[in-house]
Amino acid sequence: MVKGTSEKNTGRIRLGMVGGGQGAFIGAVHRLAARMDDHYEFVAGALSADPKKAKASGEELGLAKDRIYSDYAEMAKAEAARADGIEAVAIVTPNHLHVPVAKAFIAAGIHVICDKPLGISLKEAKSLETLLAKKKDLIFAFTHNYSAYPMIRQAKDMVASGVLGDIRVVQAEYPQDWLTTALEKSGQKQADWRTDPERSGAGGCVGDIGTHAHQLACFVSGLSVEELAAELTTFVKGRALDDNVQVMLRFKGGARGSIWTSQVAVGNENGMKLRVYGSKGGLEWKQEDPNYLWYTPYGEPKRLITRGGAGSMAPAARVTRVPPGHPEGYLEGFANIYTEAARAIKAKRAGKKQDKDVQFPGIADAVAGMAFIEACVKSSSKNGRWTKL
Amino acid sequence: MVKGTSEKNTGRIRLGMVGGGQGAFIGAVHRLAARMDDHYEFVAGALSADPKKAKASGEELGLAKDRIYSDYAEMAKAEAARADGIEAVAIVTPNHLHVPVAKAFIAAGIHVICDKPLGISLKEAKSLETLLAKKKDLIFAFTHNYSAYPMIRQAKDMVASGVLGDIRVVQAEYPQDWLTTALEKSGQKQADWRTDPERSGAGGCVGDIGTHAHQLACFVSGLSVEELAAELTTFVKGRALDDNVQVMLRFKGGARGSIWTSQVAVGNENGMKLRVYGSKGGLEWKQEDPNYLWYTPYGEPKRLITRGGAGSMAPAARVTRVPPGHPEGYLEGFANIYTEAARAIKAKRAGKKQDKDVQFPGIADAVAGMAFIEACVKSSSKNGRWTKL
Amino acid sequence: MVKGTSEKNTGRIRLGMVGGGQGAFIGAVHRLAARMDDHYEFVAGALSADPKKAKASGEELGLAKDRIYSDYAEMAKAEAARADGIEAVAIVTPNHLHVPVAKAFIAAGIHVICDKPLGISLKEAKSLETLLAKKKDLIFAFTHNYSAYPMIRQAKDMVASGVLGDIRVVQAEYPQDWLTTALEKSGQKQADWRTDPERSGAGGCVGDIGTHAHQLACFVSGLSVEELAAELTTFVKGRALDDNVQVMLRFKGGARGSIWTSQVAVGNENGMKLRVYGSKGGLEWKQEDPNYLWYTPYGEPKRLITRGGAGSMAPAARVTRVPPGHPEGYLEGFANIYTEAARAIKAKRAGKKQDKDVQFPGIADAVAGMAFIEACVKSSSKNGRWTKL
Amino acid sequence: MVKGTSEKNTGRIRLGMVGGGQGAFIGAVHRLAARMDDHYEFVAGALSADPKKAKASGEELGLAKDRIYSDYAEMAKAEAARADGIEAVAIVTPNHLHVPVAKAFIAAGIHVICDKPLGISLKEAKSLETLLAKKKDLIFAFTHNYSAYPMIRQAKDMVASGVLGDIRVVQAEYPQDWLTTALEKSGQKQADWRTDPERSGAGGCVGDIGTHAHQLACFVSGLSVEELAAELTTFVKGRALDDNVQVMLRFKGGARGSIWTSQVAVGNENGMKLRVYGSKGGLEWKQEDPNYLWYTPYGEPKRLITRGGAGSMAPAARVTRVPPGHPEGYLEGFANIYTEAARAIKAKRAGKKQDKDVQFPGIADAVAGMAFIEACVKSSSKNGRWTKL
Repeated sequence: MVKGTSEKNTGRIRLGMVGGGQGAFIGAVHRLAARMDDHYEFVAGALSADPKKAKASGEELGLAKDRIYSDYAEMAKAEAARADGIEAVAIVTPNHLHVPVAKAFIAAGIHVICDKPLGISLKEAKSLETLLAKKKDLIFAFTHNYSAYPMIRQAKDMVASGVLGDIRVVQAEYPQDWLTTALEKSGQKQADWRTDPERSGAGGCVGDIGTHAHQLACFVSGLSVEELAAELTTFVKGRALDDNVQVMLRFKGGARGSIWTSQVAVGNENGMKLRVYGSKGGLEWKQEDPNYLWYTPYGEPKRLITRGGAGSMAPAARVTRVPPGHPEGYLEGFANIYTEAARAIKAKRAGKKQDKDVQFPGIADAVAGMAFIEACVKSSSKNGRWTKL
Repeated sequence: MVKGTSEKNTGRIRLGMVGGGQGAFIGAVHRLAARMDDHYEFVAGALSADPKKAKASGEELGLAKDRIYSDYAEMAKAEAARADGIEAVAIVTPNHLHVPVAKAFIAAGIHVICDKPLGISLKEAKSLETLLAKKKDLIFAFTHNYSAYPMIRQAKDMVASGVLGDIRVVQAEYPQDWLTTALEKSGQKQADWRTDPERSGAGGCVGDIGTHAHQLACFVSGLSVEELAAELTTFVKGRALDDNVQVMLRFKGGARGSIWTSQVAVGNENGMKLRVYGSKGGLEWKQEDPNYLWYTPYGEPKRLITRGGAGSMAPAARVTRVPPGHPEGYLEGFANIYTEAARAIKAKRAGKKQDKDVQFPGIADAVAGMAFIEACVKSSSKNGRWTKL
Repeated sequence: MVKGTSEKNTGRIRLGMVGGGQGAFIGAVHRLAARMDDHYEFVAGALSADPKKAKASGEELGLAKDRIYSDYAEMAKAEAARADGIEAVAIVTPNHLHVPVAKAFIAAGIHVICDKPLGISLKEAKSLETLLAKKKDLIFAFTHNYSAYPMIRQAKDMVASGVLGDIRVVQAEYPQDWLTTALEKSGQKQADWRTDPERSGAGGCVGDIGTHAHQLACFVSGLSVEELAAELTTFVKGRALDDNVQVMLRFKGGARGSIWTSQVAVGNENGMKLRVYGSKGGLEWKQEDPNYLWYTPYGEPKRLITRGGAGSMAPAARVTRVPPGHPEGYLEGFANIYTEAARAIKAKRAGKKQDKDVQFPGIADAVAGMAFIEACVKSSSKNGRWTKL
Repeated sequence: MVKGTSEKNTGRIRLGMVGGGQGAFIGAVHRLAARMDDHYEFVAGALSADPKKAKASGEELGLAKDRIYSDYAEMAKAEAARADGIEAVAIVTPNHLHVPVAKAFIAAGIHVICDKPLGISLKEAKSLETLLAKKKDLIFAFTHNYSAYPMIRQAKDMVASGVLGDIRVVQAEYPQDWLTTALEKSGQKQADWRTDPERSGAGGCVGDIGTHAHQLACFVSGLSVEELAAELTTFVKGRALDDNVQVMLRFKGGARGSIWTSQVAVGNENGMKLRVYGSKGGLEWKQEDPNYLWYTPYGEPKRLITRGGAGSMAPAARVTRVPPGHPEGYLEGFANIYTEAARAIKAKRAGKKQDKDVQFPGIADAVAGMAFIEACVKSSSKNGRWTKL
């Protein structure tokens, strides 16, 4: 097996990175994800804006000295000028830099793989969308990694194929507990910037993980949110952003749903869960046990579909590496985004059309996420008024 | 073992029933619950308003001929007049009769054990509350049976003792799928009256099971809902009442929460779930696996407390019958209400004060449930406006 | 619902009990089980051999003074002589008295419901079998209660109907941890007699719970054990009987399997589990979550069949009381034995043939259990030699 | 995070591979595992003995033409002769070639990472052990990958630290269902060689997966098997090797246990499970949900320790990449073997002593596995006689 994600090595993609230096979390995840199926070669980076730290981080990771930068704009220019310059860049900075960095590399003709959310305002996100509309040759992949889990691909395909009938209810949740106390006051780097409006934007919990829940709900159901009513709460004294979020959803077409996301729900690590109910069947999935998908056809016993096992279909199989019963996890899901993006980039490189089965979140998901954050913040500030996206 | 629920037989309580004839569901549950710990003797009934059906039902259950009634008012009078008349009555009719029947028996000086919700309007419920305030010698037990599961008693006790710290978030849900199709059009008796506003009241799903979720959330957390924003939806064409309900909750004191309840969530049987998160710990419990209570002290591994097992405390032990690892279920939980009510009734009979550990839902829970239904219906009709209870 | 187990009250069966006085465990379980579906009336007992304790126990349970005995032989005679004497007796003493008591009541023409195992030797068990062979009018029910769980009935029916194909492997286990320490030295009553060869027989753990695993494996698979190889171990110093048991099984017809049972497996309460695999499908069931049955048809996704839910069939439905999603437990399973036995007893009373669907464990199961114990003890004493049953 | 497994790139190890060409399964797993933490560079291979297939496979994977071989002996020599020759070789052939290939590379002074089991006879395995004893400078890593799951490292550490007390019972099982039918007759490559004694050795199921269960039981408990009694069965007609295995175990020091492993247990994918019980506590772990470890201190509630979460300790943390709640899987566990071996190889390269925390299975595990297989086959052929290892 180790099927689906071909290792066929038709020339690795030269990859750079902005952000992700020592002490960061998500940068190393991106590097590992890029490496997993051997489609990328990591060759350049502005891993920190602090030159010393950028140097130390780059050297630790084996970058050539002349490809270690501390200024992303300089990096974009220098790499674009090299014959062996990077073909794609991974952006893993705090939120406020996502859009400026993306713009710099897009201007330099370099593909972008960007972490979420897309900056700190919807306006800013839309400006990138406008820019990208003019750059049809550039790939923009957005790492809503959860949507690349095999069983989520399967779930989306099942909904699209109609086995659930008309979708009626979509329940999404993403509880964590790591901000139960005022961790940001301890100097912990992740907590520090995530609770700071300057670097995180107007949403705290809603931006950091609420967007994942929103994207997953829409990705699987094939629906988009028409309007929402939200209640953002901050439980930890002195915190500047929300740490618990309730949202009621009205989807276009009449489905209803809700999102609950929290960073103070003690006992939850990364408890994202999605449940979709239609007139003919239901689906349930949990991020912490991602190799399982519960499917209930109405009036029949529940079925447990396993990744790669009986009942698992082509959309799951193509992003599956090992046989059923051998669990895959978060990194494999994340790597699927990189591998799908690699297929798109290689198609561009070869002047070919992208394979129709290739899929990864892009600018539309990114803009929708910012619209979701802003609608939540706005609704909550208006005492939960239903607010259009 | 078989501890907690003493079988000590100090004279069974003579019990009557209104409703619960052939074809009914909950009447037989009440009878079994009454029988379980041997505190009651079932001796009289107006099991149906239809005299033929009342007779057939009563005979099948072994009632003496002269104690089979079809008119509850007549039954109340006749039983009150007998030296061996019933001491308590179980009311298991459709909702619209709960209050009139209760009043008749209270007027006759007979204790009442009543199914939920308490009638079809808050006004009606309050009128009973007013009546009961003048009848201090009469017991009124309300069968919010889920609150009598041992691990729910334990959960309430843990919250009250402070091990969870300040309660911040309470998430309750109760999904079912039995009304996914227009079952009421098939003539199914349960579906028929539950979707009929005349007999069910203004709430469908919200009244039938939303009230259970609301009561459980409040019972365990020790909090009450200050205001709520609700979205009631009817998915099945032609249905007169809601079949899917989203509610956002603001509790007195600042906690937040939500209730989701549905009768069209395919794959769910009676999936009630409660999650309570405080500043120091969290609890999780599911009705379908009621012998387990998850408890997470912040910063420590999750613990699985089992009914009667290590970590299970006195409040659970007193309503536990068999050793840990031997599951108890729905009927045992239901029976706990009857047994606790029996203790209260026997105390009255003996002129003694009720033991301080005896607890069962009463008129306050019943009225709060009606207030919850009305607030949900009102909020939803005002496009989700926050509405005080 | 509350279907299956009819409450139809065509005259309760008058029931007596031997054993089960104050401080006992299983006696109260039997009484509750008898009461659950209202088929029995508990009217007489020799609840203890100690007259004082017998009296106190009987009075606490509301027995008439003249029907409280301390000598079971006297009770058998006296009750047989009364016009309103008991029709059936429940035997809930320590093991060594099971056979003598059963014989006394059988001689008196009284039906017997007996706890397991059947005494302390195979020889003794067979002597009762011989006696019963001559008393065709008497019912002998043996409380292998686990075999009366609805999903176990369903499992048996599925195997019998051939959906699993030829049975190949049967894995049974029953781990507990309550004898991890030398509890018997503390004077705990249950531990005391269960670890005493005089009252328990030659098997400790193997007799107390191994017999349940053996009976369940055979009941569901429809197979019988041809020979076995066993390893009995005693881990707690000073204990006279085994507390951990490994058995390899060869079934008639070629299937293989194993039983593991332990009283020192820390973290297990009553973790009985049964797994049956055939050429076309597999089944899995756990006592602690008895409302679920996993069924996997080969090459298809696993299915979770719930008690009373879709996929649950008639054999489960007839011993089911409440709708799916409302859990039933140990007591309901136990009560099913009493209710099925009541149907058989009432058929005898009415001179009718027993309904073909009525089933409960009887003398054959009881004798097979003793044969299992003796074969295990013998095999283990011969260094694990394969031993025929 | 992405801690533990440092990415520090102090010069990748040049890696070759024997076996693992097109159509193989485990070769791709090894390559991915080697790549995950960026410690290796895959540069040469004899991916097939068939020159055409070797060429096609090597080219697909981007190997230089002059480093694609079809003869492993030639490869060993040629690579040893190059200045940039491989430093380590991964052996992923069918079983019968494991030892000859290993010997060839060891003779050439190249480190070996070898799949299991170690050949087809204990004698052959021991001959390699003898050879390695003379080659202290060469690393031999054996991919019992399950032992490198973080929670297994944690479990081993907990047992070693004494929190479980004296180990009494070790229950291991590894059921699969992929050989339920005569798949080998369909030409499926994996089934073909695994059921062929010439290429698999004398054990079928017992060698393929029984060895994993045996190694895991010993690795975690810290015990070794003194003697065993086994029953090997072949259920599928015409199959040459066992497909279901029962083993009773006596460990040195008095602990008892069992292993059940099957390839015909319908509904099981890779259901390896380990349970260890001591005088003070118990542990339970399942391969399919590897991020969870159940720990029960005697007399306290069960605790669910999650990978990286509270209660998870240093031995788990050092082989953990992402935060708790973000699942890791089979590939990450497999990669841990490669990463630990890389640390050992880099230490050799640097002339340094291997860090004391580095651990991976080696020749002793490999030889013990062959001894286990041979003892099982022998015991079974002697009608289950207890047989020393």
